[in-house]
Amino acid sequence: MYNFASDYLEGAHPQVLEALNQSNLMQTPGYGMDDYCTSTKAILKKQLKRDDVDIHFLVGGTQTNMIVISAALKPYQAVITVDSGHINTHETGAVEFTGHKILTRQHKDGKLTVEMIESILKEHPDEHMVQPKMVYISQTTEYGTYYTLAQLKEIYECCQRHQLYLFVDGARLGSALVLPDAPQLEDLARYSDVFYIGGTKMGALFGECLVIVHDDLKPDFRYHMKQKGAMLAKGRLLGVQFGALFSHDLYQKIGIHENQCADILRQGFVDCGYSMYIDSPSNQLFPIVDKKTYEYISKEYITTFMFDIDEEKCCIRLVTSWATHLQACHDFVHYLQQMG
Amino acid sequence: MYNFASDYLEGAHPQVLEALNQSNLMQTPGYGMDDYCTSTKAILKKQLKRDDVDIHFLVGGTQTNMIVISAALKPYQAVITVDSGHINTHETGAVEFTGHKILTRQHKDGKLTVEMIESILKEHPDEHMVQPKMVYISQTTEYGTYYTLAQLKEIYECCQRHQLYLFVDGARLGSALVLPDAPQLEDLARYSDVFYIGGTKMGALFGECLVIVHDDLKPDFRYHMKQKGAMLAKGRLLGVQFGALFSHDLYQKIGIHENQCADILRQGFVDCGYSMYIDSPSNQLFPIVDKKTYEYISKEYITTFMFDIDEEKCCIRLVTSWATHLQACHDFVHYLQQMG
Amino acid sequence: MYNFASDYLEGAHPQVLEALNQSNLMQTPGYGMDDYCTSTKAILKKQLKRDDVDIHFLVGGTQTNMIVISAALKPYQAVITVDSGHINTHETGAVEFTGHKILTRQHKDGKLTVEMIESILKEHPDEHMVQPKMVYISQTTEYGTYYTLAQLKEIYECCQRHQLYLFVDGARLGSALVLPDAPQLEDLARYSDVFYIGGTKMGALFGECLVIVHDDLKPDFRYHMKQKGAMLAKGRLLGVQFGALFSHDLYQKIGIHENQCADILRQGFVDCGYSMYIDSPSNQLFPIVDKKTYEYISKEYITTFMFDIDEEKCCIRLVTSWATHLQACHDFVHYLQQMG
Amino acid sequence: MYNFASDYLEGAHPQVLEALNQSNLMQTPGYGMDDYCTSTKAILKKQLKRDDVDIHFLVGGTQTNMIVISAALKPYQAVITVDSGHINTHETGAVEFTGHKILTRQHKDGKLTVEMIESILKEHPDEHMVQPKMVYISQTTEYGTYYTLAQLKEIYECCQRHQLYLFVDGARLGSALVLPDAPQLEDLARYSDVFYIGGTKMGALFGECLVIVHDDLKPDFRYHMKQKGAMLAKGRLLGVQFGALFSHDLYQKIGIHENQCADILRQGFVDCGYSMYIDSPSNQLFPIVDKKTYEYISKEYITTFMFDIDEEKCCIRLVTSWATHLQACHDFVHYLQQMG
Repeated sequence: MYNFASDYLEGAHPQVLEALNQSNLMQTPGYGMDDYCTSTKAILKKQLKRDDVDIHFLVGGTQTNMIVISAALKPYQAVITVDSGHINTHETGAVEFTGHKILTRQHKDGKLTVEMIESILKEHPDEHMVQPKMVYISQTTEYGTYYTLAQLKEIYECCQRHQLYLFVDGARLGSALVLPDAPQLEDLARYSDVFYIGGTKMGALFGECLVIVHDDLKPDFRYHMKQKGAMLAKGRLLGVQFGALFSHDLYQKIGIHENQCADILRQGFVDCGYSMYIDSPSNQLFPIVDKKTYEYISKEYITTFMFDIDEEKCCIRLVTSWATHLQACHDFVHYLQQMG
Repeated sequence: MYNFASDYLEGAHPQVLEALNQSNLMQTPGYGMDDYCTSTKAILKKQLKRDDVDIHFLVGGTQTNMIVISAALKPYQAVITVDSGHINTHETGAVEFTGHKILTRQHKDGKLTVEMIESILKEHPDEHMVQPKMVYISQTTEYGTYYTLAQLKEIYECCQRHQLYLFVDGARLGSALVLPDAPQLEDLARYSDVFYIGGTKMGALFGECLVIVHDDLKPDFRYHMKQKGAMLAKGRLLGVQFGALFSHDLYQKIGIHENQCADILRQGFVDCGYSMYIDSPSNQLFPIVDKKTYEYISKEYITTFMFDIDEEKCCIRLVTSWATHLQACHDFVHYLQQMG
Repeated sequence: MYNFASDYLEGAHPQVLEALNQSNLMQTPGYGMDDYCTSTKAILKKQLKRDDVDIHFLVGGTQTNMIVISAALKPYQAVITVDSGHINTHETGAVEFTGHKILTRQHKDGKLTVEMIESILKEHPDEHMVQPKMVYISQTTEYGTYYTLAQLKEIYECCQRHQLYLFVDGARLGSALVLPDAPQLEDLARYSDVFYIGGTKMGALFGECLVIVHDDLKPDFRYHMKQKGAMLAKGRLLGVQFGALFSHDLYQKIGIHENQCADILRQGFVDCGYSMYIDSPSNQLFPIVDKKTYEYISKEYITTFMFDIDEEKCCIRLVTSWATHLQACHDFVHYLQQMG
Repeated sequence: MYNFASDYLEGAHPQVLEALNQSNLMQTPGYGMDDYCTSTKAILKKQLKRDDVDIHFLVGGTQTNMIVISAALKPYQAVITVDSGHINTHETGAVEFTGHKILTRQHKDGKLTVEMIESILKEHPDEHMVQPKMVYISQTTEYGTYYTLAQLKEIYECCQRHQLYLFVDGARLGSALVLPDAPQLEDLARYSDVFYIGGTKMGALFGECLVIVHDDLKPDFRYHMKQKGAMLAKGRLLGVQFGALFSHDLYQKIGIHENQCADILRQGFVDCGYSMYIDSPSNQLFPIVDKKTYEYISKEYITTFMFDIDEEKCCIRLVTSWATHLQACHDFVHYLQQMG
C-alpha cells in the first residue's frame, strides 16, 4: 500500500536529518537561545529582506495558531476566517480554549474575501458582541488553493483600513511559494502582520517558523510560548532543521517537487475523465470519483475520503510531499488507467 | 567551556538517534496512530507489568503537566504541590492559564509530605474556596532528592483517603529509578494515578511518555492533547525514541551513568571542603561555594547560579546527563582542587 | 417618547418590589443559604411537580448561560445552537471565554431542528474536532417564536439518543408558558436536562432561576457560581423576588399581559397593511415597515432597528412587558393609523 | 439570635431602598446607559475631584475583582497580594479561572508591604516564570486593618517604579474612609490605578462602583463586563443606589455608624479581659476567646469562628454594618459581662 493521505507520513528530508546528526553532540543552551537558532534567524531575515521582524521556532501548527491568536487578541476579541479554516475545523477548539470566538463565512474556493470580512465587521458594532480584531488565512488553503500576491494585498489593505491583524498560516507555504503570482517570503513580510513558514509538512521532523512583523505583537512573545508548553527544551533542533531547509534552496526545491508529483496525479485523474471538486494547483488534489473507483483505488493506495457528493460519487483527497516518489505517482496513474 | 547547566544540552543518545535514522523513510499514519507507537506501548506495558493503563506520548514537560492537570480537574478544583514544584515556579503560569489554582506549602528537602497535604485540605472546606483534587510531585524533585517507595505509598494512601489524584512528574525519572529504595515503574503504576517517564532529559531529542492509571482520567485524553497543540503530527518520532530508550536497558543505563557522573562532582566538592545546600543523591547537585570559587569555576565551566546564601556564599547547581563525559567530571574535580 | 425597545425598561413588578420592601430589615445568612430561598425553592418544586431537581438563583442571563455551559462541558466539548442563539450573538463571546466552541446552523423560524443537530454531529467524529455535548435553545426564541411541547420532546429525544445535554434558556419563559401547546414547567423538567425561569425580563429587578434536572450536572454547582462571580452576597433578594413571582399566579399573569399587549400592536401593524418578518406569537414582534414609517414611528416611540430588508424597507422590533400599558399599545396603533 | 457574622445580613439602607421605590416605574434604556447612572457618575467625579476617570457599576466583589484583574493583565502576567487577600482565599479561584497566577507573601497585620512586592519581583526575572504586573490590596483589609495615606503612597510609588498597576478593593471602603489618616476618595484616585467603592457591604442591595484611573485600563472595559456576565440588564438599579449612597453624606455616615458599633463591641471584649488577634480599628473585630466563652456567646449571638489559637482558645470574628443597632451592641457587651 502506498500512502497519499498526507504530507507528514515520513520523517525528515535527508538533508534535514543529516544536519541533526551532525550537530547532535554539540552542547548548547536550551530554549532556543543557541547559536543554531541565531544563525538560522539571520539566514531567514536575509531571505525576508528585512531585519526588523521577530522570529520564533515552534513545534506544531495547532500550537502556533493558538499562541499567535491568543497573544494578539484581548479577551473579548475574535478572529475571522472561512468555515473551512483549519483553526475552525481541525484543531479541537484550541482557539476557543484560549477564550476567543472564531467568526466565519462560507469559503469561496477555500478562500476568504474582503466582502466576507466587511460583512462580519458590520454585524459586530458594540460591546454586546465580540470585537473582530484578526483575520486568519492559510497559504495554501485547506482546499489546496492559494492567494495570489494581488489577493493577499487586497486582504491586507482591508485589514489595515479596519485595524485588524492579518495572520497567515503557512503550514504548507512551500507549495504556494512556487506557484504563479504567489506572494514570496518578502511579500508576506510586507502584506501580513504575522505569518509562519511550515516545517512539519515541508520536510522537517517537526517545526514551524513564526515571523512577527507588527510591532504590537512582538513584546514578550516568549512568555506566551513558554506558558502554552511550546518552548522546546532542546530548541536548537528547530534552528538546525530550518537552517537546513533554507540552505541550498531546499525549501523551494521541496515545493517544486511536491507540486510536480501532484500534477502527475491530477493529470492522471483528468485523463481518465474525472473532474476535480476544486481547482487546486498545489500539492493537494480533490478528485470526484464514483464509489467503485474509490474502492478500487483503496485496494492499493491510501487516500482520504472527504465527503459524499451524491449517492454514487464522492470527493477524495490526495496529498504529495518531499518524500513522494515520482515513480509512485506514475504507477498510481497507470493503476487508475487499468480500471475496467 | 564545558557545560554542567542542565541535562538537555545535547541532542539525542546515539541509540535513539540511530533509531530515528533507521525509521526515517517509512510511511506511517500521523498523530501517534502508527506501529512504532503501538509496539513501544507494548514494551512499556510489559515493563510496567500491567496492561490496563493508557499510554500517550507528548513533546515536553510543561505541556504534559498543563494537559494532565487541566484534563483531571473541574474548573473550580486545584492542585497541591510544594513551593518549589516545577509547575509553581518555572512554567510561566501554564496551570493557571488553564484555569486552576496551585496550592503550596514550603518544601522539605524538595519534597511534599502528608502533613502538608492535610493542612491544605483543612483550609478548603467549602465553595467559597477552590477544591483541592490533585497532588503533584516530581521524581526526582527540583532539588535532586527523591521519594522512596515507602514515602510514595504514604502519599498515595493519603490521596486515596481524601479522593485526590496523585500525579508524578517524572521528567528526571531515570535518575531516580536507580537509587536505593526508589519506586520502580511498576510501583509508580500501583501508587499513583498518572505519571510520566521523561524523555527530554533522559536521552531523547524530546518527548515525555505519559501513563494513565486511574480510569477516570482515561476517556478522551487525545482530545485534550490535540486541543492544547500537543499531538505531534509525526507522532511516530516519539514511539521510535521511547522504543530505543526502553530497549537493551538503555533508560536504566542512562540513569546509572548520570548519577555516577554527579557522584564524582559531589565527592569532589566535599573533598575540597564544600557543603551541599541539600543532600541530593541524583544527577543534580547544589554545592554551597564562596563567590570567589564561583568566579573561578565560571572561567572554565558553565553552572547555574541558584541564590545567595549570604554576603560571601552562594548556592549553585550542576547537572549531569547521558551525554556527560566521565572524564569531564574528573577534570572538573581536578580543576576545583587546583584553586589556590 | 414611549419605549417599546425591550422588556427590561422599568424596575420590578409592584408585588415583587413590595416583597423586597417587606423583607428588607430581616437578618439572614448570605449567599442564598437563607429561609427566603429555601421556601421559594419549595414553591417551585411543587409547581415543577418534582422534588429531585436542584434549584439555584443567579443574577443575569449571560452569567447563567456561561456558568451552565462551562459547568456541563469538558474542555474539548462544544454546544450546539442556531446562529441567532443569544449565546452566539449577544454575549460578547462569554461561552468561548470559558473555553468552549459554539457550533451553529442557520435558524428556521428562530428555532433549532433535529436535522440541524444531527448534521453537526456527523461532522464531528473524532479528536481532531471538538465534541458536541450540549444543545442550547431559547424559549421563547430570539425571534419571538417558541417550541411546542411536541417539538421540545423531539429535540430532547434526539439529545437522549446522542447523549447530549439539553439546556433551555427561559429568559422569556413567561411569555411562552401561556401560548398554545407550549411545554409547561413540569414538561421542561421532564424534557430538558437544565433550564431556567427568567426573572429579569419577567418582572424582577434582576434574577434567573435555574433548575438542574440531570444528576450529572448537580454536584458542586455552587462552586461554579462562586468562581464566576455569580453568587450574590445578599442571595435572599432572589429568593424573595421569585417567591413573589410564583405566588398568586403572578408569573402567569405577567405572561398573559405582555402577550396581550403584543397582540394589540401586531394586529395594528397587520390592519395597516404591514407584514411580519417572522410569525411570532409572543411578546416580541418584528414588523417590516418602509423607512418613512420607521421615521414616523421614531418621532414618538422607541423601537429597535433590526436590519434592512431592501433599499426601502426594514425590519424593526417591538417588545412588551409586565409594565407595558394596554393604553400605550392602543395609542401606538392609533398613531400608526394616523400616518398619512 | 442576633447576627454579627457579616455586613450583608439585611437588605438596603432605607434611603437606598426609597430611591429604588421612587424610580421603579421610570422607563430607561438598559445596561447602564441611563440617566440615573449618568448623574450618579457626575456626583462621584465631583467627590473624586477629577473628571478624567472612567466609572462603571458592577454587581459584586468577586465579579469586579476577576474582571479588573483579567482586563488589566496579559495572559502570562500575575497579580501580587498577601496570603490573606480575598482574591487568594475566598473567591474559589476566580482569578486563576481567568488564567492568572496570584503571587503571595504572608501578610503583616493583614497588609502588604513594599518589601514583599520587591522580593516577589526579584524572583520573577524572565519568561520561564509569570510576570508580575499588578498589586492588589484591600481597604479595609480582610483583617479589619487599613492602609494610611502614607502607606498607600509608598506602595503606589513602588508600583510606579516597577510599572505595576495598583488595584484597591474597596468592598469595605466606607469603614476605612472615616478612620484617622486614611486616604480619601480623591487620594485613591491619585495613588492607585483602579479601585472600587463598595456598595454591597455599605448599604446597597448589591453593587460595586469601579473607578478606573490609569488610561491603559479604560478602553473597551464594557466588553469585559459584558463577557463576564457582569453587565446588569437594569443597570439603572446601580446608578440609583450609588446616587442615594453618595447624597446627603450617607456613605460617610454609614462608615461612622458601623465603626462606632464595632468600637462598643471591641471595648466590651477588652473590658472583660479578652485580647484581640489583630488590632483592627474598623467594623471587623477579631477577639481571642476561650472555647467556653465562644459556646456561651453562640447561645444568643451568631459570630464567625476563625481558627483555633490553641487547645483552649480560638479567634472569632464580629462584623457590624449600617443595619447594626447600637442597642444590640450594648446588649452584647452586657451579655458578655454576665458570663459566670
